[in-house]
Amino acid sequence: MIFKQLFETETSTYSYLLGCERTQRAILIDPVASELDDYIDLLNSLNLKLIYTLETHVHADHITGSGLLRQKLGSKSVVHRDAGAMCADLLVTDGVPLQVGDLELEVRHTPGHTNGCVSYVMADRVFTGDALLIGGSGRTDFQQGDAGQLYDSITGKLFTLPPDTLVYPGHDYNGNTVSTIKQEMAKNTRLGGGKSREEFIAILQDLKLAYPKFIDKALPANQSCGLIAQG
Amino acid sequence: MIFKQLFETETSTYSYLLGCERTQRAILIDPVASELDDYIDLLNSLNLKLIYTLETHVHADHITGSGLLRQKLGSKSVVHRDAGAMCADLLVTDGVPLQVGDLELEVRHTPGHTNGCVSYVMADRVFTGDALLIGGSGRTDFQQGDAGQLYDSITGKLFTLPPDTLVYPGHDYNGNTVSTIKQEMAKNTRLGGGKSREEFIAILQDLKLAYPKFIDKALPANQSCGLIAQG
Ligand SMILES: [Fe+2]
Ligand SMILES: [Fe+2]
Repeated sequence: MIFKQLFETETSTYSYLLGCERTQRAILIDPVASELDDYIDLLNSLNLKLIYTLETHVHADHITGSGLLRQKLGSKSVVHRDAGAMCADLLVTDGVPLQVGDLELEVRHTPGHTNGCVSYVMADRVFTGDALLIGGSGRTDFQQGDAGQLYDSITGKLFTLPPDTLVYPGHDYNGNTVSTIKQEMAKNTRLGGGKSREEFIAILQDLKLAYPKFIDKALPANQSCGLIAQG
Repeated sequence: MIFKQLFETETSTYSYLLGCERTQRAILIDPVASELDDYIDLLNSLNLKLIYTLETHVHADHITGSGLLRQKLGSKSVVHRDAGAMCADLLVTDGVPLQVGDLELEVRHTPGHTNGCVSYVMADRVFTGDALLIGGSGRTDFQQGDAGQLYDSITGKLFTLPPDTLVYPGHDYNGNTVSTIKQEMAKNTRLGGGKSREEFIAILQDLKLAYPKFIDKALPANQSCGLIAQG
């Protein structure tokens, strides 16, 4: 399996390339529009055909590259049915298995940061989007965010994965690239060490975060698979 | 590849079992609720795990087994986004590739019999549901049916497949089991031999078919993946 963690520095966004060497087919998780040329070069250099782009959610901080990749490469865009991105080609729900070549993922609905958030689970790793971050979590003050729901998603749908499962998040602002379920259960500052739902909600309510600078442009664009703002 | 054409005699409905021997995974196309036990026995005897049930459309004449199979076997239900069956787990659109083990299908949107009709295309065969039937076509007087649209779907999306593509329909009332694209282009009584769109529309308008005896029960049931009428 080909596996690359890609970092977009302006918004500290992680995207992930998964490739099946046997069938030369690939998946991109959370592609960023500004990185389009890099993705195409990378896919070409690895001789991979992009089949699906998987969105963990409708992003508020960057514009998805899914629509442009569909135009350029014919890939299909995958998103949760509740995400409000009816531009997508494939609308998924909790528990749905997806396969591309020998790559096998399962959709896990993990709402709370947004109501359409999903994590993508593989045998040994999980892509958590902005639900579970390394040492933290997504914010819950926009996009139908709900701190209690996010707590339930993380503890019920992610902390129940095998402890050594690798955690690959949608963002990191501190240079972390990977964690494990066990590590987050122990050390996550917002809900590790057995913090209660009430403690988690209080922490999230107390964050006093600035209004996301890009949200008013990013949301409508991403509800159109990134194609509106790109013209 | 394991391949079985299954026939439900009361409504003359064809269902199809596709199995990947390498991975022991399976797909059922258009399962019928009354045949549930037979499907489970068949899957067990072949040692296959059912991953997806694929609906070609929301049926008016029989009740889908997709919801019951999901309950019993954990399979996920696939349907077109416009079919109005929000009970489904995976909502698809034109051109989406789906893979289960080594089984590879592509969704082709072929509306006209209903607005959410799809055909499922494999390398050498196509499952046409009630869009293209052997020697005929689906009716277009219910469920947002549109004869002109059905003509466009069949000629634009199915007659453009390789001529030797095997045609497996959703029903047959005359004992036919399989046809080819070439054969339907030549011999189909409603649009073969180069019949025009206007001729096709006139033929469909002139059918004077009886009101489908089961439609008032089947439609609401199938919009719930067959689970309402089953209790
Ligand atoms: Fe986010
Ligand atoms: Fe039908």
